[in-house]
Amino acid sequence: MKPLEGMGEDELIARLVRLVPTGQAEEGPGDDCAVMDDGGMNLVLLKTDALVEGVHFVRDADARRVGWKAVARVVSDFAAMGGTPERFLVTLALPASMTLDWVENFYRGMGTCFERYGAVLVGGETCRVPVGSAAVISIAATGRVERGNVVMRSGGNLGDAIWVTGVLGGSLAGKHLDFTPRLDQARWLVKHFKPTAMMDLSDGVARDLPRLAKASSCGFQLDLSAMPLCEGCDVKQALEDGEDFELLFTFPEGQGLEREWQQKFPALKLTKIGRLVKPGEGDELKGGWDHFR
Amino acid sequence: MKPLEGMGEDELIARLVRLVPTGQAEEGPGDDCAVMDDGGMNLVLLKTDALVEGVHFVRDADARRVGWKAVARVVSDFAAMGGTPERFLVTLALPASMTLDWVENFYRGMGTCFERYGAVLVGGETCRVPVGSAAVISIAATGRVERGNVVMRSGGNLGDAIWVTGVLGGSLAGKHLDFTPRLDQARWLVKHFKPTAMMDLSDGVARDLPRLAKASSCGFQLDLSAMPLCEGCDVKQALEDGEDFELLFTFPEGQGLEREWQQKFPALKLTKIGRLVKPGEGDELKGGWDHFR
Repeated sequence: MKPLEGMGEDELIARLVRLVPTGQAEEGPGDDCAVMDDGGMNLVLLKTDALVEGVHFVRDADARRVGWKAVARVVSDFAAMGGTPERFLVTLALPASMTLDWVENFYRGMGTCFERYGAVLVGGETCRVPVGSAAVISIAATGRVERGNVVMRSGGNLGDAIWVTGVLGGSLAGKHLDFTPRLDQARWLVKHFKPTAMMDLSDGVARDLPRLAKASSCGFQLDLSAMPLCEGCDVKQALEDGEDFELLFTFPEGQGLEREWQQKFPALKLTKIGRLVKPGEGDELKGGWDHFR
Repeated sequence: MKPLEGMGEDELIARLVRLVPTGQAEEGPGDDCAVMDDGGMNLVLLKTDALVEGVHFVRDADARRVGWKAVARVVSDFAAMGGTPERFLVTLALPASMTLDWVENFYRGMGTCFERYGAVLVGGETCRVPVGSAAVISIAATGRVERGNVVMRSGGNLGDAIWVTGVLGGSLAGKHLDFTPRLDQARWLVKHFKPTAMMDLSDGVARDLPRLAKASSCGFQLDLSAMPLCEGCDVKQALEDGEDFELLFTFPEGQGLEREWQQKFPALKLTKIGRLVKPGEGDELKGGWDHFR
């Protein structure tokens, strides 16, 4: 029996989805959200995400910030599809040693994020895990996106520039609990310069860009010298740290995007970090890539 | 700091929902599903549920049966609202020692349940828990119910008879992994004899009936001698074992329900176990109640 250890999440999911009926989603599991078409003006977005104690947060982390992060991660996924979040369900699987204070502060943190991004909590579940087990927080949510504004990972075209918002790397220094999901920026983008493909950077450029490129049937060429670095970080950290929750998207150059971005969001960097190329052409870069891993 | 230990789930949820924006659901958290009105012909149902290793299943349990149970529990919740399940999201928080075989069989078990009840998987998430931690499986799902067919816990009326499907107790002997959610029966009920209030029995009559009665602003009077017992179980077990996943509902006597039920579902018992009374009147029974706890 093959143990899960050492198996990549992408490989695992690809094996598993063959075993169940997976419905009529425009894209199967693999994009930032599932996209459902009920025939209305808007498409329905569905997302589930989890935080594990000892992996995504530590017990003595400020519970309010953990609550913010739990919701903000999912808001970031809706943003990555060009959509907006709506309704949240939260499942808390907690050891009995967890304090009421912790849980209340976690809810307060969630509440701040709900209010900031116009979402609501509509249901939840609490249950106990055995003594010694890690707490697991699972968030599920629905969102929506106008039919014409939805952006998948798969729409990137040969020659498109690859763009990234903000600066990358250094999430573990604390940023990962306080990040701002780029919902406002994503909504502005889909309305004014519709990206051809988009996702949020949860696992780092090194893991996420290959996913976007593969979904778009392209390779990619990176300009490592252009990588926007978080203060104190090197290129390796910017590529691999993960939990940046910045937008990664593709859009052709020369259409005025940079100029209008700077006027609209002067405080947030927008950087061109490369371009989509033919699948074969990108291969050489993949070599340089592995070097960083 | 008050520890969670010893705090009831109902009390905890009541404290927590005050801390966040909770939206426009017809009923707040507390019913079997959240009910959302988007203005269409159908209401949208949302549900989240979790299974914890060592609590809801053991590691050496047949993974296919655990997968069935994970989905069937949620199907049962949609049934309890009078609705049908549609789209599922699954989050697996697993220790690295879990085998691929286990996870694949879990998915196969889910798939069997999806196919039986016309639902699909549209997304998922897998993540690791630290060594020694219990596996946590979190399921979120959407469903729907025709506007006229939705049944809440809160609609019970003074004098309504209290009904229960099937036989109760003995879940731990194995039934809890193989139960049949009463979706067909619930759909038939809402179309032909609309229950005034309904829920599914997940925590046992002893915990669930007081919830239904309270939501309906009633007390209840039980006929313990009428309790339909699973073979080998006594009344105490029937009241307290939980995980029966039978329907508990209220509906007036004398409208032909029993006769038509027997013709439609000859293999499944329908039993009148009591009636809704004034809040005060039920109090005496609550004493007898505590005796059973």
